[in-house]
Amino acid sequence: MNHYSIGIDIGGTNTVVGLVRDDGFVSKRLSLPTQEYTTTPAYISAMDEAIRTLMQEQDIPDIESIGIGAPNSNFYEGCIEEGTVNLPIKERIPLKELMESRFGVPVVVDNDANAAAFGELVYGGGRGMRHLITMTLGTGIGSGIVVDGKIVHGHTGTAGELGHCIVNPNGRMCGCGRQGCIEMYASARGICQNYLEAAAQAGAPLSESATQTLTCQQVGEAAAKGDPIACKAYDTTAYWLGIALANAANFSAPEAIFLMGGPTHAGEALMTPLRKYFEQFLLFIYKGKISVQLSHLNSNDTAILGSAALGKISE
Amino acid sequence: MNHYSIGIDIGGTNTVVGLVRDDGFVSKRLSLPTQEYTTTPAYISAMDEAIRTLMQEQDIPDIESIGIGAPNSNFYEGCIEEGTVNLPIKERIPLKELMESRFGVPVVVDNDANAAAFGELVYGGGRGMRHLITMTLGTGIGSGIVVDGKIVHGHTGTAGELGHCIVNPNGRMCGCGRQGCIEMYASARGICQNYLEAAAQAGAPLSESATQTLTCQQVGEAAAKGDPIACKAYDTTAYWLGIALANAANFSAPEAIFLMGGPTHAGEALMTPLRKYFEQFLLFIYKGKISVQLSHLNSNDTAILGSAALGKISE
Repeated sequence: MNHYSIGIDIGGTNTVVGLVRDDGFVSKRLSLPTQEYTTTPAYISAMDEAIRTLMQEQDIPDIESIGIGAPNSNFYEGCIEEGTVNLPIKERIPLKELMESRFGVPVVVDNDANAAAFGELVYGGGRGMRHLITMTLGTGIGSGIVVDGKIVHGHTGTAGELGHCIVNPNGRMCGCGRQGCIEMYASARGICQNYLEAAAQAGAPLSESATQTLTCQQVGEAAAKGDPIACKAYDTTAYWLGIALANAANFSAPEAIFLMGGPTHAGEALMTPLRKYFEQFLLFIYKGKISVQLSHLNSNDTAILGSAALGKISE
Repeated sequence: MNHYSIGIDIGGTNTVVGLVRDDGFVSKRLSLPTQEYTTTPAYISAMDEAIRTLMQEQDIPDIESIGIGAPNSNFYEGCIEEGTVNLPIKERIPLKELMESRFGVPVVVDNDANAAAFGELVYGGGRGMRHLITMTLGTGIGSGIVVDGKIVHGHTGTAGELGHCIVNPNGRMCGCGRQGCIEMYASARGICQNYLEAAAQAGAPLSESATQTLTCQQVGEAAAKGDPIACKAYDTTAYWLGIALANAANFSAPEAIFLMGGPTHAGEALMTPLRKYFEQFLLFIYKGKISVQLSHLNSNDTAILGSAALGKISE
């Protein structure tokens, strides 16, 4: 008999509630317009109703757990902290307490980067592993670190900010106020910047309008087709990311590092040079023992599977 | 009533067996000449006898645990791996199994850097903490990482090699074959190199003989007295170490990072610039939340206390 869990992915636009089968199949999902819920009771009731609707429609009598991926969340306290920028509710939302009292199953709340790491561990390429790292390349870079089967939250609760590891102390200014964070070279914006610099170096600088409309998706598609400037941009990304991942390996010596997010859709244009630089920068005792892989999760399902996975590993 | 544990520090020259009281007082220690034991049974018998001698002399009827800090050790298997360079016994030594059968108490085997981290956690400045990092500056740099009260060993068992995090990709050649590891700037040798470069920059390069006899202890003593070139050398160390520690903070967001080892005896000549650079390079969400401290352990006791602590945190 199959078992089911609920994953809830809270975003500024949509709150997606999904029913997830134990093998990682997303049976059904419902989407709530986040901005319409201005009080905690109304928001909780809407999520409650969505869960019960999904269960009835799919004829599922019981769920095992509820995992919630949310911005500005506090894993230790199971809440969304007060003053969260993208939510209309500005007070602290004690999600764990409120949902556990309604459903009587374990509820775990964590941020989306940690949810992605749990999703990879429970439903993706990390099945059976105890130690892994995931990095989500996007507008910024999020990361989740699994040590001994648990997410590392640290003393502050906010551990796992590998996107802000400094790899080039005299490098590009980062939005965090420091220089040379890996995010500046391997996020979507960083890859565009790599492209612009490579184009200028090749004597073919982009026009101002082309510069302003350049997207990472364009660079990725061009690289996948072998465009030399786009490939150079991804090579630069791979160089700096190789250093960052090799440094991360020194920390937790994981079995694998998984990459996900839009910029990874370039595929081998990223992964071939990345594996080369990673092995080059990896300390000799780890060489050949740590793999760098693309996420095994379907990118449309990552957020829901990650959220659902959170609840599954609670003890 | 006081409780007691045994700590055994295995080195290439001496194997030191210590009886440690729960408050971190080292009641008594005995030293065995490591090189004289050429078979596992002889070596185990010698350690056994040393433990029983200590217990009898101090009139201690029971010990709670035995922790062993050893080179080339495998925590997961509780052994010293075969072919260990500095030991006369070249076969695999299953210390945990052999000692547990003799004493009937938990036995834990780990490397000296992890032992130092446990020592700080159990007996030192980390008492009551769940998340900390220790770095031992010496000929190289060793590190131990505690997450949720446990040492991070990773998939390979060899996690926690923070001395080989690359902070300056085009920097000094490291013995590990790569460039710019923090070890090249903050180990004893790295600090001497910093001094030589600072002296040359100041127009006062050292003679060849002075270069060859320069020690980190000399640099540290000069820095403690305010010598500007020695202070510059430590400032350079602090700059790179500040980056390395700030990057480590991104990983596990510990409550504190503790430094130990000979080069830290320079005291504030290291710590004042280090705290400045650490805060400068720390991601804003961690600022003011993570302290960098000198180890609270007496350096003569670190190895024994660390070893004893290993056994105390076994579950």
